[in-house]
Amino acid sequence: MPESIPPAVATASTRDRLLDAASRLFYEEGVHVGVDTLCRAAGVSKRSMYKLFDSKDELVAASLERAAPDYELDLLPASDDCRSPRSRILHVFERLEHLERAHEFRGCPFVAAAIQVKSREHPASRVARRQKDKLTSFFQYEAGRGGAPDPVMLARQLTVVFDGASAQSVVQAQDLDGLAIATAGVLLDAAGLSSPDDCAVPNAITGVAESAR
Amino acid sequence: MPESIPPAVATASTRDRLLDAASRLFYEEGVHVGVDTLCRAAGVSKRSMYKLFDSKDELVAASLERAAPDYELDLLPASDDCRSPRSRILHVFERLEHLERAHEFRGCPFVAAAIQVKSREHPASRVARRQKDKLTSFFQYEAGRGGAPDPVMLARQLTVVFDGASAQSVVQAQDLDGLAIATAGVLLDAAGLSSPDDCAVPNAITGVAESAR
Repeated sequence: MPESIPPAVATASTRDRLLDAASRLFYEEGVHVGVDTLCRAAGVSKRSMYKLFDSKDELVAASLERAAPDYELDLLPASDDCRSPRSRILHVFERLEHLERAHEFRGCPFVAAAIQVKSREHPASRVARRQKDKLTSFFQYEAGRGGAPDPVMLARQLTVVFDGASAQSVVQAQDLDGLAIATAGVLLDAAGLSSPDDCAVPNAITGVAESAR
Repeated sequence: MPESIPPAVATASTRDRLLDAASRLFYEEGVHVGVDTLCRAAGVSKRSMYKLFDSKDELVAASLERAAPDYELDLLPASDDCRSPRSRILHVFERLEHLERAHEFRGCPFVAAAIQVKSREHPASRVARRQKDKLTSFFQYEAGRGGAPDPVMLARQLTVVFDGASAQSVVQAQDLDGLAIATAGVLLDAAGLSSPDDCAVPNAITGVAESAR
C-alpha cells in the first residue's frame, strides 16, 4: 500500500466522489466491493484514492461517517418538535418503517457494516458503535424526560428493537407492517411513557434534542 | 462455470469437508470468501466443488442449512423440558447471551448471511428466512400455550428482540449482560406470561416442541 499523503493534497470533489460511490456500493453490494470497482464507479484513480485514505478499511469507515448525518436526519424528530417523549421516540420507529417501504432497504447501514467487517476493532465498527450510541442517547434523553424508571435500560432495549426490526426487514420478504412501532410501544407502555399533552409546552425542548443528535 | 453434475457422483466426505469449511469461513470472514480460499481450506479441488454445487450461491445456502441443526440445538430448550412457556421462551435468550460470551460471537449466522448477500431472492436468504420462521414458530407455540392474547404478534416481537440483541452484541464492544433476557421479559410480562408452576405437568409438552424445531 502506498504511503499516506495528507487529504489536503486532493481536491474536495475527488474525496466527495469517492465517498459517495463508496457509501452507495458498500451499502448496496457489501463492503467487500473491490478498490478497482469502487474507483471506476467514482471516476477516481487508485493512486488518488490512496492519497486520500491510508487503506480501504479507512475508506469504509469514512463512507459510513459521510452517510451518518443524512441517516440521522431521516430517523430523528426535529429538535423543535414539541411532541411528548413517547411520540418522539416512536417517530424513529415510524421512520424506520417508512424507510423500509420507500426503497429497497438493506437494513441499518451501520449494523450491516459491523456484521460484514467481523471485527469490533475495525475502524468501520468504531463508527457503527458511535452511531448506535447516538441513537441510544437520544432514546435515553427522551426516556428520562418521560419519567421512565430506568432510562438507560429502556434506551438500550429500544435500540435492540430498532436493530432487530431492521434485521427482520432484511431477512423477511415482507414489510414490517407496524411491527417495529408495536414492539417499541410495548416497552414504552411498560415504562409508563404514555402520550398525553403533545405540544402542550411548545418549544420547551428546543435545543435539547440537538445535543442528543 | 462448469455444468452441474449430480451430488451423488462425489463422496459424502468431500461434501462434508466443503460444507464444514464453508460454514466456518463464511461465518468468520464473510460470504465473499473466494472459491479458491474455500477449496484450499477444505482440501477439495474447484472441479470437485462444482460437481457438488451449481454455484457458490448454492454452496453458501447449503452451508447455512448444515449449520442450522446445531444452532437450533444450541438455542432451543429440550422437547421434554417441563418448564412453563415463559421459561422455555426465555431459555432462548439465555442461550443467546451464553453463546455471545462463550466464544467470539459474530451475531446470528442467518441474519449475517442475509445482510451480506443483499437480495431476498438469494438461496441463502431463503434458508435464513426459513430458519427465522422456525424460531418464530417456536415462540408462537409457547406464547399460545402461555395464554398470550396475540401469540402471532408476540412471537414476531420476540424474534425482533432476538435479532436486535444479536446485532447489538456485534456492534457493541461489550457483553449483552442480560439485555436480551430483560427485553424479552418485558414483552412476556406485557402479554401476561408469568412463570408459575414450572414442571407441574411433567412431560405434558413432550413431542410438541419437536414439531416446532
